[in-house]
Amino acid sequence: MLERVGNRDALLAGAKQCLTERGWARTTVRDIAFAAGVNHAAIGYHFGSRESLLVQALVDAVEELTDTVAARAGDGSPEERWQALIDTFSTHRPLWIAQLEAAVQAEHSPALREHLAAAQRQGREGLGGSVPLALLTGLMLQWLVDPEAAPSGAEVVSELRAHAAES
Amino acid sequence: MLERVGNRDALLAGAKQCLTERGWARTTVRDIAFAAGVNHAAIGYHFGSRESLLVQALVDAVEELTDTVAARAGDGSPEERWQALIDTFSTHRPLWIAQLEAAVQAEHSPALREHLAAAQRQGREGLGGSVPLALLTGLMLQWLVDPEAAPSGAEVVSELRAHAAES
Repeated sequence: MLERVGNRDALLAGAKQCLTERGWARTTVRDIAFAAGVNHAAIGYHFGSRESLLVQALVDAVEELTDTVAARAGDGSPEERWQALIDTFSTHRPLWIAQLEAAVQAEHSPALREHLAAAQRQGREGLGGSVPLALLTGLMLQWLVDPEAAPSGAEVVSELRAHAAES
Repeated sequence: MLERVGNRDALLAGAKQCLTERGWARTTVRDIAFAAGVNHAAIGYHFGSRESLLVQALVDAVEELTDTVAARAGDGSPEERWQALIDTFSTHRPLWIAQLEAAVQAEHSPALREHLAAAQRQGREGLGGSVPLALLTGLMLQWLVDPEAAPSGAEVVSELRAHAAES
């Protein structure tokens, strides 16, 4: 039983590693099993499917990341907090791209979509609403495509205040 | 010469149709040529590559869509304007997904990333800044994955005001 629990954690860690190195679409069950050092049949046993394991790994990894950011910048100004989140777009780029890949794949998988919906509800709670969650993912898209034109934490906060005052 | 101009427009229209029906990744040059009713060699002649044509079609289609929304809801309240944009997530779902697909593909294509960066700069100008652009794409992700928990136009505006007041 202890070994089984160990396998589960190893699979999650292996899946996180694969998501970071290869992204969502190109990670196979064999990649994960190899990274985890366990037989790939263990994926079905512990998680039911590749998708279910990958989404669990994605949700865990993003949660760990935002927890780390909150611990580091939680007491800072809004500008500093946004900048700390924005910094993760480059330090954890493959993880953020994996989220986009997952959303695209979810078009063809109701089970995956349900997993991502649950993750989104968590993200909404963690960040304090739909608007900060939307801002975070929308800024991520801008940073991935065009970091030079994307706004800094200070620019986000000043634009946010101006935009809210106008609307 | 007239026929060549016609071919170019036909290819753009065919590419828009393919993006809407199949999305980004699954659209081949043959699909576009068939939809356009022209030889697929015309893609290279007019656009240089499949990606270059697809991104042009995507940018055009999104611009047409946001222009239509602006014409329809531009005089309305902020709540009505956000709701009109949000409504396009379901009426033009494949087009929005194509944007995510393009962003994922851009990870492996500097040329595509440059096209998308230019499109993003246009979007930023059209919407009035990085924050509204980020909000729009971030809300789109929430609507694609979990429309039941995603916010309405009125909720976006009220959350935005509360969030700006706090920060």
